[in-house]
Amino acid sequence: MTQHQQALIQLTAVQAAAKLSAREIAAVEYLEAYIEQIEAVNPNINAVITKNFRRARQEARAAQKTLNRQQTHGALLGLPILVKDNQLTAGIRTTQGSKLYEKHIPSKDAGIINRIRQAGGIIIGKTNIPELSIGANTVNTLFGATCNPYSETLTCGGSSGGSAAAIATNMAVLATGSDHGGSLRIPASFCGVIGYRATPGIVPNEERTINHTNYSLQGPLSRNIADAGLLLSVISQRDRSALDDPMAFPLDSHQFTSLPELDPKQLRIAFSEDLGGLLVSNEVRSLFRHRISQMSGLFKVCHKHPVDLSDAPATDWALRQDVFATQYYDQRIKWGADMNPNVLSTFDAAVKTPLLDIAKARRRQIELYRHFTRIFDEFDLLIIPGVSIKPFPWAQPYPQQIDGRKVTNYMSWLGLSSSLTVVGHPVVAMPCGLDKQGTPFGLQLVGRPFEDARLLSMAQAIETAFSRIPSLTKPLSPYS
Amino acid sequence: MTQHQQALIQLTAVQAAAKLSAREIAAVEYLEAYIEQIEAVNPNINAVITKNFRRARQEARAAQKTLNRQQTHGALLGLPILVKDNQLTAGIRTTQGSKLYEKHIPSKDAGIINRIRQAGGIIIGKTNIPELSIGANTVNTLFGATCNPYSETLTCGGSSGGSAAAIATNMAVLATGSDHGGSLRIPASFCGVIGYRATPGIVPNEERTINHTNYSLQGPLSRNIADAGLLLSVISQRDRSALDDPMAFPLDSHQFTSLPELDPKQLRIAFSEDLGGLLVSNEVRSLFRHRISQMSGLFKVCHKHPVDLSDAPATDWALRQDVFATQYYDQRIKWGADMNPNVLSTFDAAVKTPLLDIAKARRRQIELYRHFTRIFDEFDLLIIPGVSIKPFPWAQPYPQQIDGRKVTNYMSWLGLSSSLTVVGHPVVAMPCGLDKQGTPFGLQLVGRPFEDARLLSMAQAIETAFSRIPSLTKPLSPYS
Repeated sequence: MTQHQQALIQLTAVQAAAKLSAREIAAVEYLEAYIEQIEAVNPNINAVITKNFRRARQEARAAQKTLNRQQTHGALLGLPILVKDNQLTAGIRTTQGSKLYEKHIPSKDAGIINRIRQAGGIIIGKTNIPELSIGANTVNTLFGATCNPYSETLTCGGSSGGSAAAIATNMAVLATGSDHGGSLRIPASFCGVIGYRATPGIVPNEERTINHTNYSLQGPLSRNIADAGLLLSVISQRDRSALDDPMAFPLDSHQFTSLPELDPKQLRIAFSEDLGGLLVSNEVRSLFRHRISQMSGLFKVCHKHPVDLSDAPATDWALRQDVFATQYYDQRIKWGADMNPNVLSTFDAAVKTPLLDIAKARRRQIELYRHFTRIFDEFDLLIIPGVSIKPFPWAQPYPQQIDGRKVTNYMSWLGLSSSLTVVGHPVVAMPCGLDKQGTPFGLQLVGRPFEDARLLSMAQAIETAFSRIPSLTKPLSPYS
Repeated sequence: MTQHQQALIQLTAVQAAAKLSAREIAAVEYLEAYIEQIEAVNPNINAVITKNFRRARQEARAAQKTLNRQQTHGALLGLPILVKDNQLTAGIRTTQGSKLYEKHIPSKDAGIINRIRQAGGIIIGKTNIPELSIGANTVNTLFGATCNPYSETLTCGGSSGGSAAAIATNMAVLATGSDHGGSLRIPASFCGVIGYRATPGIVPNEERTINHTNYSLQGPLSRNIADAGLLLSVISQRDRSALDDPMAFPLDSHQFTSLPELDPKQLRIAFSEDLGGLLVSNEVRSLFRHRISQMSGLFKVCHKHPVDLSDAPATDWALRQDVFATQYYDQRIKWGADMNPNVLSTFDAAVKTPLLDIAKARRRQIELYRHFTRIFDEFDLLIIPGVSIKPFPWAQPYPQQIDGRKVTNYMSWLGLSSSLTVVGHPVVAMPCGLDKQGTPFGLQLVGRPFEDARLLSMAQAIETAFSRIPSLTKPLSPYS
């Protein structure tokens, strides 16, 4: 890889889009730099499991023609993008990380993919996920494991692990992910990138199997907030497929590309290390406290908050059964004993659960919402750790214990993210330096529902402030 | 009642608000005219089950002071409003139509009530409902039956029956209602008034027991579309209590008071007499066809549509169980054998239902949404009958058969409205002349989700067109 190519893949998406428009860089050379990077790095990381280089090259040439004519064009024209393998791509294999769909080539793009293409984005490949995208470790029997960009033996998190690891190692300028209980946020935290879970309904999802829900949500992964805003401004557009999503309320998508500048000194920050007693490792608690002490001076106020979501993980477990039952009730019959045990255990629990148990959880969900949302009467932002533990070896399906406390299933260590799914508030996962083992440490920044542009503005102000404090930044991945 | 008072209660809400502001009429005399009307008519109709006259008179005097000072004021200042007895009113008995709550005086207003009060609306009383507001016939053991405004032996529909009958008999200028499976629309149809079921999320409801749903929705009842828009512009405001509703997306409420004028000749109308084979009486079918033939020339096109919601009533029944289980799981224990059998039967069905059955219904719901919403690619509006039968004697809990087909439960004759709850599209119920027995005949006008202002504009254009065709209008209720 040439020095020029190295410089190209360091550009942010916003910078690259501007340089492409100004014809300071060419779409074809820009794409080739990313292809080189994938060829060089992916054998170690295994994030990109299907390549789409031939068509990408055609599209880059076509993009260059549009750029040469100086026509008005979509916001992503010429940007190489990787997309999660649970999102349908016309003509490109979409496996869901499962042998069941090993050879599935969809005839139609998912809405999110179509919006990216319509905006000129170039899909360069698909990224790895756990089977059916369930679990916070990106390993499956079809493609194996995706590695952490800072350590090949450790997990990148999941389920959008391939996308997060690819962004951290500069294999694409932007990537897509999705999130039930943390699937955008956990890999973002473990890989040191931005993952954005918007308010439900911001990103239309015409494939969802349930009318209204905080689950089954799609979003951007990127290297910085402005880039996340750029991709969000495209995937949140109300195109024709958005008509198939009953949650897609009227929205001006442009707001996410013109985030107002904010002074962090105006921000009133609440923080909590465990949301009221959720399972969080001592190591993460201690590092989080240290990070808070480092950053607290940046803000107007920075107070510990007594928020209590202690029964949100149990609520999530019940609501999750509801989602699984809706999504898979007619597919269970196709699954063999080798199906992802996370999927099997959740679905099989759902079959046995009486409606009343789910009803109690649904009732509790809205009570928790009303309790939680009061935070934002007094504070602009809630900050909590990204994940309860540091990245663990990917050879383990999930951590078996945390500080001697047994982890009972694939979700019970993920309360810090799944609890926020229960309430449904928008969340930015963003990096905040490294942990002791040299892997990224992440934060979750939570805002008020529907105030997504404001949340991104606040996150951007914090990102800028962190960039001036060496221990709150992190070195690039050795593979980037 | 004086002739002047008679003239006052004939004013629309929009007219009265303008005359109050211009001090052409006085708030106190305006209120007294309505009080006179309630005293004169309510003994026959039994729509108003709790009066709030003393406080209303104080508020009218205070309103007049504000008006005299020509201060800027809320959109409802000085308007006498009746509210449904399932909406909490501080200091005014709120019974839910149940002996269980016979003496319950809330300490706090519901959000919808508070918004009305903040806008200057004067709550003059509460309106009758079936117990816990479940059923399409407004009868309960606490207050007895509310009558149809055109025939004292017939039902006014339900569950917002008291509000609809009161509006039809000029006992208030505006009223509130709520709607699970037709509770705003059925009484509006049977009483010959407007009932508006907005897109879920338009009217915030901080009391809902489920995060996101098409059920448990609140809305206006009025004598015409512009008045419905006026009340909607207030009850859809994003006040503090709206923060407790996760469905309350950002909205400009003013849009509902400035409905653009439309020419019905531009409208492409689809119609269906039974949504694909739902239970509809021959009499309603035949009258609906006749009405369509009378109005079809008003529009650009008016086509019969093959829409098929034939399995929506079964889907509604399952989803309804989910709502009941969420709302009542901790209250069942308080209910005696005399509880409203509609409530008992739905809840007891919920207890026995496995999650998977509900899951299938939830999956079917979104499939039906995607099927149904395609109508609006080609058409501006879908028109269907308001109710499957004409008003029946209130002494029957619900009709026992329709043209020889047995009616199996309290919901199975309500498919025309409950199916639209399943898909969740916004619906105007509006009068369209009388039926053979001399009671009002109603239509449901269905539009695209989130395009509520446009739907109201279209309904207003149709209302104006109908007003020029004698058989599409109706005489006032003999009690009005």
